[in-house]
Order: sequence, then structure tokens, then C-alpha cells
Amino acid sequence: MVVHKLAPQPGEYSYVFGGREPMISIKPGDIVEVSTEDCFGGRVTSPDRLPSEVVPFNEMNPVSGPIQVEGAEPGDMLAVHFVSIVPARKYAVSCVLPQFGALTGTRETAMLNESLEERVWFYDIDLESWTASFKARNSDYRLQLPLDPMHGTVGVAPAGGEVRLVMTPSTHGGNMDTPEARTGTTLYLPVNVAGAMLSLGDGHARQGEGEVCGTGLESAMNSVIAVDLIKEGAAAWPRLENDDYIMSTGSTRPLEDAYRISQKDLIAWTSDLTGMDMLDSYQLVSQMGLSPAANVCDPNYTMVAKLPKWTLQGAQAYGGAHSRLRKTAEDYSSR
Amino acid sequence: MVVHKLAPQPGEYSYVFGGREPMISIKPGDIVEVSTEDCFGGRVTSPDRLPSEVVPFNEMNPVSGPIQVEGAEPGDMLAVHFVSIVPARKYAVSCVLPQFGALTGTRETAMLNESLEERVWFYDIDLESWTASFKARNSDYRLQLPLDPMHGTVGVAPAGGEVRLVMTPSTHGGNMDTPEARTGTTLYLPVNVAGAMLSLGDGHARQGEGEVCGTGLESAMNSVIAVDLIKEGAAAWPRLENDDYIMSTGSTRPLEDAYRISQKDLIAWTSDLTGMDMLDSYQLVSQMGLSPAANVCDPNYTMVAKLPKWTLQGAQAYGGAHSRLRKTAEDYSSR
Repeated sequence: MVVHKLAPQPGEYSYVFGGREPMISIKPGDIVEVSTEDCFGGRVTSPDRLPSEVVPFNEMNPVSGPIQVEGAEPGDMLAVHFVSIVPARKYAVSCVLPQFGALTGTRETAMLNESLEERVWFYDIDLESWTASFKARNSDYRLQLPLDPMHGTVGVAPAGGEVRLVMTPSTHGGNMDTPEARTGTTLYLPVNVAGAMLSLGDGHARQGEGEVCGTGLESAMNSVIAVDLIKEGAAAWPRLENDDYIMSTGSTRPLEDAYRISQKDLIAWTSDLTGMDMLDSYQLVSQMGLSPAANVCDPNYTMVAKLPKWTLQGAQAYGGAHSRLRKTAEDYSSR
Repeated sequence: MVVHKLAPQPGEYSYVFGGREPMISIKPGDIVEVSTEDCFGGRVTSPDRLPSEVVPFNEMNPVSGPIQVEGAEPGDMLAVHFVSIVPARKYAVSCVLPQFGALTGTRETAMLNESLEERVWFYDIDLESWTASFKARNSDYRLQLPLDPMHGTVGVAPAGGEVRLVMTPSTHGGNMDTPEARTGTTLYLPVNVAGAMLSLGDGHARQGEGEVCGTGLESAMNSVIAVDLIKEGAAAWPRLENDDYIMSTGSTRPLEDAYRISQKDLIAWTSDLTGMDMLDSYQLVSQMGLSPAANVCDPNYTMVAKLPKWTLQGAQAYGGAHSRLRKTAEDYSSR
């Protein structure tokens, strides 16, 4: 087992997908221990430091990478398994940002109203009890929330020579902000350029479905990923798999078109795995599927479509790539 | 305990909310045993009877009612608790209809493509094993699906003298098609006219989130509801509550505005219950909320926003109406 380390220093983070030289190069089957900054670049160090004053917009959401994967070529599917995602600091930060979030005017959803009050919430992170402390700012309401760490932003270099801001999810992955990207899950990303050029960041110690206020419990992370390559297996959009579900994603506006993309891909995937035609597969997904929102705040919105794996009667996605990566993760963890 | 029966005969079903005389009148606290037809009015009796040929569009989705609730006035909230929902026939029907469903052109989402093939799936319903048999039409794929019965269409007379087709969900409830409207759940509907005029139908033996193909396992139902009234407690949109979650809904287009309605209402409700201001409540819902699609196929789409009740630290919605209705349901069931 080859284990790499990727720990960018200040100044080495990326704010785009595409157009960047790799920071490290790995082989399929390798493990990467990667540290990621929070979406504020670590600059929001107390509740009175407003993000809009201390973080330039174009330095929001830094990602670690790119990681070059040897042998990855356009038409392949990159499999990124989250072996572990652990908050790296004793706090996480959430906030309401000006002109951001689902329930206020934004650059893309233009309104004349004044921005909502910018407000920062500081959460104490306790790895021992695996909780984060919610403290209301304008009352005494307190609550311990269970941690459920995830990476909001994981993607590869886009197709066609495009360079995309880290804020925008699309076919290359990116800022999909789905809580499904948690420990134990495999994310499949369609490879667009030689080497795939994987980057990740935007850890959330936990986040609700839709990320309605625009931020999760933003947290620097110490993460471990296992990376594999599926030759010539590319779907058009990112997919996920955990022990219980296969999942498709769609990222665009309006939200119903993101929903449609995710559902159509899940139906096509189910058809591939079961041998059913598209309409029979449509029927099964219609009755057994789940469809949580991932984000309704980024420049593109993201929906997830989920199907329980037991309905596939033992069919294995990508020749059992998820199970193999689970095994790699166990081998790594039990070293 | 007063128990009413409502068993409409052919010709007595309603196809609208509003503008109809009540079929029965009940008091808050009463129970109603209600039989409902399937969305095809029971006319699709074999897999080769195409719905478009045997069911006129304006006779789709019959509902039983209206039920007049004594003392209900505009500004109140009607609480409808699903005591039990049991399939009434040995089969349920699903289908792909011409110009209906999320993944094809429709009246509201106009496309030039030909319609998808109209196809009917017949499910055998087995109440003993509590399963429905999925049989692919174009292959040998077979699967037993667990039942999870729900009512797709439950609503009251709309405000402002409107009469709305049963197909369209809005502030009055109606065809929201959320799987959350299952046994053990309380649905809260804002009362718009004296007597509320509750109707329900469109039972699904089970249905995925979003009802992507446009139909669930359409089934006639023998259902039991317990009805209560919350005086002067009206929210603007339907809400739901089960033992674990409070839930808000929004029904409109585009889907992100349905999402916004549901989230804003859940945030306001959480603020009421916890005493937090709106931004602190926004923060809590952002981190702890779930947001499944309910339907992405009706003339208005529906999203659900869910918050785990443990985050409310014991605060009771509507003075504990859900718990009281649970008790009424137990009393009824143990007679």
C-alpha cells in the first residue's frame, strides 16, 4: 500500500478546477492523507471576524490539489473513497454571508432587498463525544449536534479546457455540497483530462440537506482518501456509492433540472445494472428512490437521487469498486 | 369517541377542492373511517387497459369528501392524523402516462418530443407479508417491495372562493404527493372556509421521493383518520409532524421556490418553538434539516423541509396536538 501526504501550505491552495499543475502524482489503488483548509482559508478565527471583511471572495473555498492519477484518461471514471474525514481544529464556523444562501437575493437570484445581517456562529468541536456545540447568538439556546463530517467540494479538471471557480458544481463535480460525501462513501467522477487532476476541500463537520444558509460547519479537515480508476466507465455526471445506496447527482439551475439530471442518470445506471429497459428502470426508481437536495445556494444547485442497493439483487456497480475500496480503507486503518 | 364512516359510491367522488357541499359533518376529536378510490377511479383493472384510454383526464384522482369540521374557521389549523392506511384491493397500479411525469414534456413543461410509451405495471399486494410485487414488463426482473402506504392528495377548500383541480397542490394542500403522509403522521392544513371542507384520496401503497414517473403504486385504500382543530394557529402552508420530525411543505414552480417556501416556514416554526430569532433558527435548520422532494410531476412541485424534534428540547408544536392524536389513534385501535 502506497500512502501519500498532501498538506498544502498557505499560498499553495487552489481556487479553481482545471488549468493547474499537479501538486502530487499517485497511482490507482494508492492512499492520500490530505489536509484541507476551511472555506474561509482559516481566516475566521473568532465570532466577531466577519467573513466578508477578512476573506476576499476569490479566496473563498480553497481546495487541496490537484492530485494527478497516473493512467487516468478522458472516458474513465475516477473513484474517490473517503476513508476518514476528521475535523482538524477545535472549532468550526458557520455564517450568513451577504448575498449568499437560499433565502436571500444573490448574484444569480437578484433582489433589491438589503442583505441579511451577516452573522457568524462558532461551534466547539469535541472529537471525543463526536459533537459540535450550537450556541444561538441572540438567545441562550444551546444544543450539542452530532458530527457527520463531509467534503463539500471534490472535483476534477473540467472538460474542454475549461477552468471553473471552486464555488460552482457541474459535470466535473466541484462544490456539490452533498452530506452524502461522508466517510465510507465512494464518489465517482468522470475524467476529462489526462491524470484527472483531483482536488478537494470545503470540509463540513456537519451540514443539513440543501445547505440552506450557504454554509455548513466549516472546518479544516485531516482526511484520508483511497483512489481507484475505472477504465472506460464514465458517466456524464458524478455518482456516489455507499454500503446501502447507489446515488446520482445533477448540478444546474433550475433545481428541477438538477433533479431531472440526477434521476435520469440513476435510471440509466439501474438499467445497466439490472438489464431492465429504461421504462422498467424508471418504474423501479420511481417507487424506491430517495431524492434529497444537496445544495440550493451555489451558482448551480445540486440534487441527489438514491436507490437502495438491495433492489439490484447483487449486481455490483463498476465490478465491485466500492467493496474493493472499503477493503483498502480497512487495510489502511488496521496497519 | 365518535366514529364516522365515509364510503363514497361511484358518482359521489370529487375532482376539485372547494365549491362543494359536505358529504358528512364531524366534530374536532372525531374519527373517520374513509374509503378512497385509486387515482384511476378503479378503471385500470388489467395491465393492458391504458389509463389514457379508460380514464377521462378530468376524472383522474378522485377524492373522498368534503368532510365538514364543525367550528373550523379561517385562521385555524386543521390537524389530520393518519391512524391507518391499508390497501383495499389485491393489486396496485402504476404507469407512465402520456405528457406526465418529471422526465418527459408535459402541459407545463412543453416539449416537441413524442410522448414516452404508455406502460402499465400491475403490483400484487400482499397484506400478510406487507409487500408489493414489482414485475418488469420487458424482462424477467422481479422484486418484492415493502409497502409504505400514504395519501398523495389531502386538502381543504382553498381561500378566496377558489376551486382547484385535485391534481394541483398549493397552500390548501391537495396533491402534494409526499411519502411523509403515512400512518402515524399528522398533517396540518390551514383552514380557509368555515368547516374546512377536508377531502382525501390518491392512496399509494408506496412511492419514491419526487414521484418521478408521475404515479406511485396507485391503490384504493381503507383509511382511518383522526381530526382535530387548532384555533388561530394557521401557518400559510401545510405542515406535518410525526414522532421524530416537524415538517413544512412548499408547492409551486420552480422547484427551488417550493424549497424556499418549505425552508422559510420550517425556520419560522422553529423560531416559534425555540424562542430563537429567525437567523439563529436559520442556522439550526441549515445544519440539522433534511429536504426530500415530494413531487416533481404535478402542475406545482412540492418540497418538504424536516427538522428532528429532539433539537426542539421538548417544545411541543400546537400544544402537543400530535401526541394527543396519537393517543386518540391508540384508543381507536384498541377498542
